[in-house]
Amino acid sequence: MTKTDVLIIGGSAAGLTAAISARRFNPQARITLVRKEKRVLIPCGIPYIFGTLESPADDLIPDAVLDKNNIELIVDEVTSINKGAKTIATASGQTIAYERMVMATGSYPLIPPLPGVNLEHVFTANKDIDYLTNMKQVLGQAKNLVIIGGGFIGLEFADECRKIPNINSVTVIELLPHCLLLACDSEVCVKVEQELAKAHVKLFNDRQAKALLGKDKVEGVELENGQRVDADVVILGIGVRPNIDLAKNAGLKVDDRAGIWVDSWMRTSDPHIFAAGDCTQKNCFLTHGPCLLRLASIATMEARVAGANLFSLRQRAASPIGVFCTVIGDLAIGSAGFTEWQAKKEGVDVVIGKATSADKHPATLPGTQELTVKLIFMRDSKRLIGGQVYGSDKAGYVANCIGSLVQQGLRADELVTFQVGTHPKLTPSPIAHQIENAAELALVQLL
Amino acid sequence: MTKTDVLIIGGSAAGLTAAISARRFNPQARITLVRKEKRVLIPCGIPYIFGTLESPADDLIPDAVLDKNNIELIVDEVTSINKGAKTIATASGQTIAYERMVMATGSYPLIPPLPGVNLEHVFTANKDIDYLTNMKQVLGQAKNLVIIGGGFIGLEFADECRKIPNINSVTVIELLPHCLLLACDSEVCVKVEQELAKAHVKLFNDRQAKALLGKDKVEGVELENGQRVDADVVILGIGVRPNIDLAKNAGLKVDDRAGIWVDSWMRTSDPHIFAAGDCTQKNCFLTHGPCLLRLASIATMEARVAGANLFSLRQRAASPIGVFCTVIGDLAIGSAGFTEWQAKKEGVDVVIGKATSADKHPATLPGTQELTVKLIFMRDSKRLIGGQVYGSDKAGYVANCIGSLVQQGLRADELVTFQVGTHPKLTPSPIAHQIENAAELALVQLL
Repeated sequence: MTKTDVLIIGGSAAGLTAAISARRFNPQARITLVRKEKRVLIPCGIPYIFGTLESPADDLIPDAVLDKNNIELIVDEVTSINKGAKTIATASGQTIAYERMVMATGSYPLIPPLPGVNLEHVFTANKDIDYLTNMKQVLGQAKNLVIIGGGFIGLEFADECRKIPNINSVTVIELLPHCLLLACDSEVCVKVEQELAKAHVKLFNDRQAKALLGKDKVEGVELENGQRVDADVVILGIGVRPNIDLAKNAGLKVDDRAGIWVDSWMRTSDPHIFAAGDCTQKNCFLTHGPCLLRLASIATMEARVAGANLFSLRQRAASPIGVFCTVIGDLAIGSAGFTEWQAKKEGVDVVIGKATSADKHPATLPGTQELTVKLIFMRDSKRLIGGQVYGSDKAGYVANCIGSLVQQGLRADELVTFQVGTHPKLTPSPIAHQIENAAELALVQLL
Repeated sequence: MTKTDVLIIGGSAAGLTAAISARRFNPQARITLVRKEKRVLIPCGIPYIFGTLESPADDLIPDAVLDKNNIELIVDEVTSINKGAKTIATASGQTIAYERMVMATGSYPLIPPLPGVNLEHVFTANKDIDYLTNMKQVLGQAKNLVIIGGGFIGLEFADECRKIPNINSVTVIELLPHCLLLACDSEVCVKVEQELAKAHVKLFNDRQAKALLGKDKVEGVELENGQRVDADVVILGIGVRPNIDLAKNAGLKVDDRAGIWVDSWMRTSDPHIFAAGDCTQKNCFLTHGPCLLRLASIATMEARVAGANLFSLRQRAASPIGVFCTVIGDLAIGSAGFTEWQAKKEGVDVVIGKATSADKHPATLPGTQELTVKLIFMRDSKRLIGGQVYGSDKAGYVANCIGSLVQQGLRADELVTFQVGTHPKLTPSPIAHQIENAAELALVQLL
């Protein structure tokens, strides 16, 4: 029987990050990572396999980092955990004893309970190289692609797949009144929708798929309103569900929808077993209610906490906050924390500040684009609870700046004196810099 | 006699920002901005006039913002302030009465007391369109350019002027052992120096100019070590001095080197007169000792505070923090707060974390570049006091993220749970994201 000090189950963002942190805090420990996959895909890179990248092989997390951190890799499937004996069993018949474990079993794409979802050529963002290789081949011969779900992953698929030479039409079916509405307010969604239109992607908002049509292979999608859309490939991009089977079977406390229960130290109900990433339960940073966000940024944060705490509780997990960014067509957008729409839905009285300016200064510099920031403050406390940005590719890091300010719970008056470095080619003008101006414009509404 | 509620003296970053903030907080007030210049240059854009931009006319702060905010513009020179009578006099003979004033008189390029500094074709980054138009014409016919001072402005001039077709040689003379040493640690400076070498810019570190040579026009620079460098143009880029004459003559409290004294509300020694920007005294965010930074980011912060406080004290100024970024050749760099070198010089015991990763993920994406972050923490408090970044053009906003974390005084353990949004095309991988990894690598040194 193999014995290890630290056993990590799962080799994606959370598992790998937990292993690295465990190594940094425990230079002498034996650390073993067990994963099913021979090679591990970068999950958020999956849509880019179909346009920008050549193949799934271009979208891998490099294994070199395991060697570099002296982490033993076992490619095998963990089939059960005996938490009393502190051992696991694998599909190949191995038994491994552990001192501490980190479960990073991730999530699966959600499959909606629609007639026809099992037809051929219906795909998800499945994190499997062979699956994606086949999917790329099928898409290479497809004419009409329908994507169910207008969130980030759905739109990224749409924006990439439209570049496949054979494809005549890309259609996105979205249940809500706008695409991306769980991450952005409608005015930002509309900007993205304009980009999709420019790229000849059809977007059906406010529509629900009723059935996938076809005999063996998918041939179309029927909507609740009776409309039919031709499709020789359908991609489902409606979210993920946590992979909790192993934890549940081991008798750990789990919630089927929310995931594996963890405390602030990322310990499961068994103090020797930690969990991190898409498989865990999360509580919203603002409401402390359930948080269904499954993001690599949250997964890696949790994993660093788990990795630090294995043999001594050192680090409490932060409250998860959603920080998103993407590029659709020529438009980059980002969002952090709550949207205005979500805040109002929760019953939070908000005040909004918004500022637009060129992303370089002077705006005569080559390649200058517009960049808009919207900040959302609680009216009473003046605290920043969210923000959005759209425009140039600076949007990604502007969202991260906003995210850092939301995470610190800064007030509008504190943001007015926030100092950002500026440079003609790299940033907006300090006079017109969007974050401070949006904060000031919100603040004066509170006088 | 004209009467105004708010009189702003100076139309550059601080003056204009103060006027805008004053308007936002005082919708009904009469606001008048007096400035000498018909049109106002963007100060940090000046080096780019000589390469990337066509002419000084491409580097202007648009006046439209004055109209938009209903700010009256008077192009005139304020010659004296009568603070007892609350009036000013101008060169054209006007007298203007004010209720509140903001002095935003800025700074002048520092002229070193060297023999020959008054020769023809010796220039500074003078914020004057005619001056710069002439300078551009002279540079267009120059062969050998010498720049005295290897700080940001000096290197940006070097990097831009090397693109002028006629110019054979660009040489930078730097007093310290490396260029940029007041903003970056030597390993970052060396990266910049490699870029300069690639661009055939000669850099003489550890050298001091002794005299400028020539009869009428400059012909060369003599160094303290006896070396002579040919030059038909010399640019002085050794810093600025605050423009305090008007304040001093009005009897306001000033320090010749540090600038106009102000309190936390940006009031001068006369409570009806505020000051903001390069003309004011500043105290270091870390040591509270004198701070000689003159940055647009600090100027605009101070201006927003002044603008908010004119008729009711609302907002305390933040402690100034240096956040810089620039691009030299193909390398973007940024810095926020203290460098390791500066911290050690102050007697602060520091611990350093450093992380390098691709700026996109997977690194197979087109245009991927490396990005390195170095973070500097106080050993005892674990607080972040500075950081630097170099690599791709993301460096500007990464420096701003680091700056926001320094401004909040976050500890290394808090940074480990900092959540940043990531996206294949816009950011590094969440596993390898530099800020959290650098923080963790610093933290484990403190176990």
